[in-house]
Amino acid sequence: MNPVIQLSPDRIPRRWYNLAADLPKGLPPPLGPDGKPVRPEQLAPVFPMNIVEQEVSTKRWIDIPEEVINALLKWRPTPLRRCFALEKHLGTPAHIYVKDESVSPAGSHKSNTAVAQAFYNREFGIRKLTTETGAGQWGSALSHACNQFGLTCKVFMVRVSFDQKPFRKTMMQVWGGECVASPSRETAAGRAVLAANPDSPGSLGIAISEAVEAAVSDTSGGTRYALGSVLNHVCLHQTVIGQEAQEQLALAGEKGADVVIGCAGGGSNFAGIAFPFIRDKINGANITIIPVEPASCPTLTRTPYTYDHGDIARMTPLMPMHSLGHTFVPSPIHAGGLRYHGMAPTVSCAHAQGLLSPLALDQLECYAAAVTWARVEGNIPAPETSHALAAVIREAKKAKEEGKARVILACYSGHGLMDLVGYQRYLAGELKDVAMDDAAIAKCLDQIKDHPRPVLG
Amino acid sequence: MNPVIQLSPDRIPRRWYNLAADLPKGLPPPLGPDGKPVRPEQLAPVFPMNIVEQEVSTKRWIDIPEEVINALLKWRPTPLRRCFALEKHLGTPAHIYVKDESVSPAGSHKSNTAVAQAFYNREFGIRKLTTETGAGQWGSALSHACNQFGLTCKVFMVRVSFDQKPFRKTMMQVWGGECVASPSRETAAGRAVLAANPDSPGSLGIAISEAVEAAVSDTSGGTRYALGSVLNHVCLHQTVIGQEAQEQLALAGEKGADVVIGCAGGGSNFAGIAFPFIRDKINGANITIIPVEPASCPTLTRTPYTYDHGDIARMTPLMPMHSLGHTFVPSPIHAGGLRYHGMAPTVSCAHAQGLLSPLALDQLECYAAAVTWARVEGNIPAPETSHALAAVIREAKKAKEEGKARVILACYSGHGLMDLVGYQRYLAGELKDVAMDDAAIAKCLDQIKDHPRPVLG
Repeated sequence: MNPVIQLSPDRIPRRWYNLAADLPKGLPPPLGPDGKPVRPEQLAPVFPMNIVEQEVSTKRWIDIPEEVINALLKWRPTPLRRCFALEKHLGTPAHIYVKDESVSPAGSHKSNTAVAQAFYNREFGIRKLTTETGAGQWGSALSHACNQFGLTCKVFMVRVSFDQKPFRKTMMQVWGGECVASPSRETAAGRAVLAANPDSPGSLGIAISEAVEAAVSDTSGGTRYALGSVLNHVCLHQTVIGQEAQEQLALAGEKGADVVIGCAGGGSNFAGIAFPFIRDKINGANITIIPVEPASCPTLTRTPYTYDHGDIARMTPLMPMHSLGHTFVPSPIHAGGLRYHGMAPTVSCAHAQGLLSPLALDQLECYAAAVTWARVEGNIPAPETSHALAAVIREAKKAKEEGKARVILACYSGHGLMDLVGYQRYLAGELKDVAMDDAAIAKCLDQIKDHPRPVLG
Repeated sequence: MNPVIQLSPDRIPRRWYNLAADLPKGLPPPLGPDGKPVRPEQLAPVFPMNIVEQEVSTKRWIDIPEEVINALLKWRPTPLRRCFALEKHLGTPAHIYVKDESVSPAGSHKSNTAVAQAFYNREFGIRKLTTETGAGQWGSALSHACNQFGLTCKVFMVRVSFDQKPFRKTMMQVWGGECVASPSRETAAGRAVLAANPDSPGSLGIAISEAVEAAVSDTSGGTRYALGSVLNHVCLHQTVIGQEAQEQLALAGEKGADVVIGCAGGGSNFAGIAFPFIRDKINGANITIIPVEPASCPTLTRTPYTYDHGDIARMTPLMPMHSLGHTFVPSPIHAGGLRYHGMAPTVSCAHAQGLLSPLALDQLECYAAAVTWARVEGNIPAPETSHALAAVIREAKKAKEEGKARVILACYSGHGLMDLVGYQRYLAGELKDVAMDDAAIAKCLDQIKDHPRPVLG
């Protein structure tokens, strides 16, 4: 009973898988202010062209550069863990596996794309990256990656998180990253917010605006912006997760997965575990693929497939995605991540084509699942990851009821060691369920009702 | 260039290695209040007899029970990491390897003995374990292990740490452990301290007294005490580390290690990595074995081999060890662990027999090494572990000066994610070197100058 299925370093994936090549009805393009598809060069002030080329690529397989592979080899291939103890605890005939992305230096899957983005920016001659971070996972991962590739990193961290989680800033500093609270006085966007409200707690929308402004206003041209989720190239970089998992399941003697689960905020860790399996599904395999979102921010389960901006300041193009509207602010009482108003265009498009079975869960069920997991399997998961684990428990119970020895695979996207304040509040009984009701969702959607709708081929 | 050397789960060690069997001049016994060797049954109120038997065993190999192996398999074998990036950074011909014990659920090597102790207590019919914890590593590991084996766990945590590191308490709670600040009102020892000083910040000595009292005063007989370092059985349980490392070095194509390094507070992670290599050294191998202690608490490098108590309240027998005296209180400005006044009897005895080359380092060099490590290799080490890494860097530079391609092996005992306050203070320039000077050491040793000295065979 060896619970850890290792993959030899020689077997690390050497190509990323691009779902855009295989979506039967295509992937609609983002739209510019003129309502026309965005041309790649319009993105050049924000991202380096080698990344823009990936963003719009329809090649099925994209070679991973040798230097990126060497960076990934410091923690990849990650372990696949057979959850014998959880199976026994639940009395389920299901075979439960999690792909453990918490073993990276920054503690989550975010490092997979961070090192790739740092590499491509350095190749393009960029010297500095700016970004925003909420809880701090992405800011930590990008600080680590920039340091590995000799770039400077500047992180705008939402002030309320900056104040509540001072150690995330310390992590970034250990890796040489600079972290400032947003809104800051360093950008016009930040100063405008502070002029209106000197005590502003900040928001992801404001922080994105500051990070983009800081990148495009560097007249030397040596600074670009980096995003940790949502975009096609970010989802692409995560597909090492699912590719490794497929090989490890075979090593474990499984024919494949019957159910594939990932939590979904912006969509990138879900994309990472799921896209290689979606390919199999498009090719005829019978797989249930479940993105799990919080009921406090339900996009795939409760919103239409529409065009919407990626940020509150409408600096991004219109993206084809499921969205609660770019002005959406999630409940502050929700203690996990996964609070983005939209969903990655590739994930949204896969759902629009009937390939996904999304699920929205409320936070008490997720924290209960996380505590069960920690007590039975050992590790403390990130609050985001707990959404995937709650769905795993639901599916394992269903398999028990139906007497089916299904193979359930989930992405264990990150550890919870930097997020124990959420557990503290949960264990103290201070958290409550915060699902959006119909009226709240209707109000959100009213703001974007006139946006154009993506057309599938 | 694959930096991670995995060991197949099938190759997990199935026996612990007991150095007491091989020390050429024997291992002196602990002494009771009457000055005579302690009889095993005298320890029975504190520890279960199956653990006491291990404590006094002179068998070379002790089989690891199947249930303990299954518990260890959740994170073992741990990775051995070849540090190509650090070698390149230092320009050294040395081959640098670290054995990564940070991958356990509680984040350090402590879990290796925690699961073994929980198992043996449960086998003996014990239902509850008490212990003390300083920074929280051990309390976390024991909470996790008790939960795995169905025991209740009660942790007395030094109040100043309890207040400064609230998330360690949360970790213990997630695993079902109960954590109270020490001094507490729950024990006579705690109440006496609070009566004299209601604002007492606590100390490890007070917390040990409280934990032992809580164990022995349970008249049902269902409670015992557990210790996370120092004792023979604890060091024994850690020898899986060095045994795995030996096999992994062979897989990496090395003939063995030339230098073996571990940080040393109580001595257990050092014992874990080093004892299997000390056996080789006793049998003729040419290996330099370096325990690294903080210059703020230097036992092996600055104190005589003597008999001394393990705790400030003198509740333990007299142990044969290097010691600064059981009343020693380390500098509060020292930001790492490794603050125990004594050194494990087995480690002390190995040094007394000329088998070790101890080194004392001050904290600024260690934090500098930790930041170099994090920036070059990626992960953020525990402040304790940084002592080992600083010694690795010294040895790698020495190998460069001498042009020798030495194989350097170190134990990466834990991650630093719960200890970022130390990094915060270091990066802010708030820490300073705090080596004990000759006068301070002389004053400490004066208190124990009349203690008996161990006699080697």
